[in-house]
Amino acid sequence: MTTTVLPPLREPGPGLVVLDPVRAALLTELDALFTGLADQLHAPAVVGPPLLPAEGLAKLDYFRNFPHLGVAAARYLGDTLDALAAGEPTAEQPVHPTGYLLPSATCYGLLLSLADTEVGAGQRLTAVGRCFRNEDHYDGLRRLWGFHMREVLYLGTAEGVRDHLARSKEFILDLAARLGVALDYRPANDPFYDRTGSRAKLMALDPVKYEFLAVDGTAIASVNRHRNFFGDRLGITSDGAAAHSGCTAFGVERWVHASILAHGSADAALQRVREVRDGRG
Amino acid sequence: MTTTVLPPLREPGPGLVVLDPVRAALLTELDALFTGLADQLHAPAVVGPPLLPAEGLAKLDYFRNFPHLGVAAARYLGDTLDALAAGEPTAEQPVHPTGYLLPSATCYGLLLSLADTEVGAGQRLTAVGRCFRNEDHYDGLRRLWGFHMREVLYLGTAEGVRDHLARSKEFILDLAARLGVALDYRPANDPFYDRTGSRAKLMALDPVKYEFLAVDGTAIASVNRHRNFFGDRLGITSDGAAAHSGCTAFGVERWVHASILAHGSADAALQRVREVRDGRG
Repeated sequence: MTTTVLPPLREPGPGLVVLDPVRAALLTELDALFTGLADQLHAPAVVGPPLLPAEGLAKLDYFRNFPHLGVAAARYLGDTLDALAAGEPTAEQPVHPTGYLLPSATCYGLLLSLADTEVGAGQRLTAVGRCFRNEDHYDGLRRLWGFHMREVLYLGTAEGVRDHLARSKEFILDLAARLGVALDYRPANDPFYDRTGSRAKLMALDPVKYEFLAVDGTAIASVNRHRNFFGDRLGITSDGAAAHSGCTAFGVERWVHASILAHGSADAALQRVREVRDGRG
Repeated sequence: MTTTVLPPLREPGPGLVVLDPVRAALLTELDALFTGLADQLHAPAVVGPPLLPAEGLAKLDYFRNFPHLGVAAARYLGDTLDALAAGEPTAEQPVHPTGYLLPSATCYGLLLSLADTEVGAGQRLTAVGRCFRNEDHYDGLRRLWGFHMREVLYLGTAEGVRDHLARSKEFILDLAARLGVALDYRPANDPFYDRTGSRAKLMALDPVKYEFLAVDGTAIASVNRHRNFFGDRLGITSDGAAAHSGCTAFGVERWVHASILAHGSADAALQRVREVRDGRG
């Protein structure tokens, strides 16, 4: 006989969560609900690259803004391989750069994959993937070293971006209401633009990012307006001009957290998520 | 208007694939078919850890066997952060070990999560995750730096392992037949046991691993008998004795490759996969 009740699963380190069956089902089913936005907006699903080139990220000012967040992919070389094979202690063995990093957000890989293309009047796509960020502290499902992010990305015109983000905002608020997850939203800063003088004032009037916050203040989703920054840096054009872009991001583990918080237990949260899935929510 | 035909997606480097919508759908739908085995065997789905501790992998002789495969998670420190923020070239900047590696197989994280537990008469679980391996060459969807692996893991008795793997073998051959993917299978070596003298002879009589090969020789699935090696190393017990374990592994991108090879195009392969999903295959 095989039992189906698992022993508790041990997490291998700070910020590295292992999801038991009920929380794993929440992750999968919530992500399936997020794809409802992609379906509404006719955004085809792709699988983004597992690692991103450092030089590509540098083009996007990634290292100017977030050098500390970056988790690099590294390898062991030469004598270290022999030491490891001989059973020497492993954790502190020196590693060498590969020139690649793990994604810290899903849209970077999508944007880099579209470099030097023409997207016509507008193009959308969606993907989910694991993202990694070095943080100075980790906190349950709220702040993880590795987590899943679903994004729905639009590239095209400035007006198309506004429409994409308005429809995304409506979708997020409606989905949260159906899930029984109370949400607030607020403008947030985005480091991709300089914060000096007139630009800062302009941004206060015309924010480029809105975050959606659960009752405990956890930001579980955001809509982000990139202006034509990525289009310009990556040579992505819309009818010949640098494409404007915007993305809608769902922090999947954070929605798991928020839904458990709202319903008091993972089992109750999963029941509600399945009611919404089945159109009963 | 937003168009739904994507421009070709650029891959960011060797072994780093980006899947367009049809191949992404193949990946998702094939993985959903693999979970049929987990359903049959009542293996609950979990989400494994995104990174694995080097010291934990060392306990499993990982570095004795595969030191070159390991992709380590690294970070930038000190002056390097300043250099990166100042816009200096990035690819060769020095990195420091974190003590963690990316998974090279899905079952390592599951096994480490179960360390020091008692699994009773038997326990199964399943997970899919991205795995990473440094290879000396990469080859389309057949050999990737980062790829998805679905595993169905059993821990318990030696007899339970035999049953798990026999049922897995039957499932794999039946699924491949329904998908129109011709499969051969053969015993394979496993480096977890020494290859000298009587043990090597014993293994020739009683293989611990079978691989399932597409017509071009690509191994797309395997069944693996670990004896009580992991149970012993990790303190996982089955009714008090070191647990025996075995796992069934599906290389998801390799099934995408094999199904395209079998049907001549990704569109034709997807049509067949959907027929099988809908019970028409």
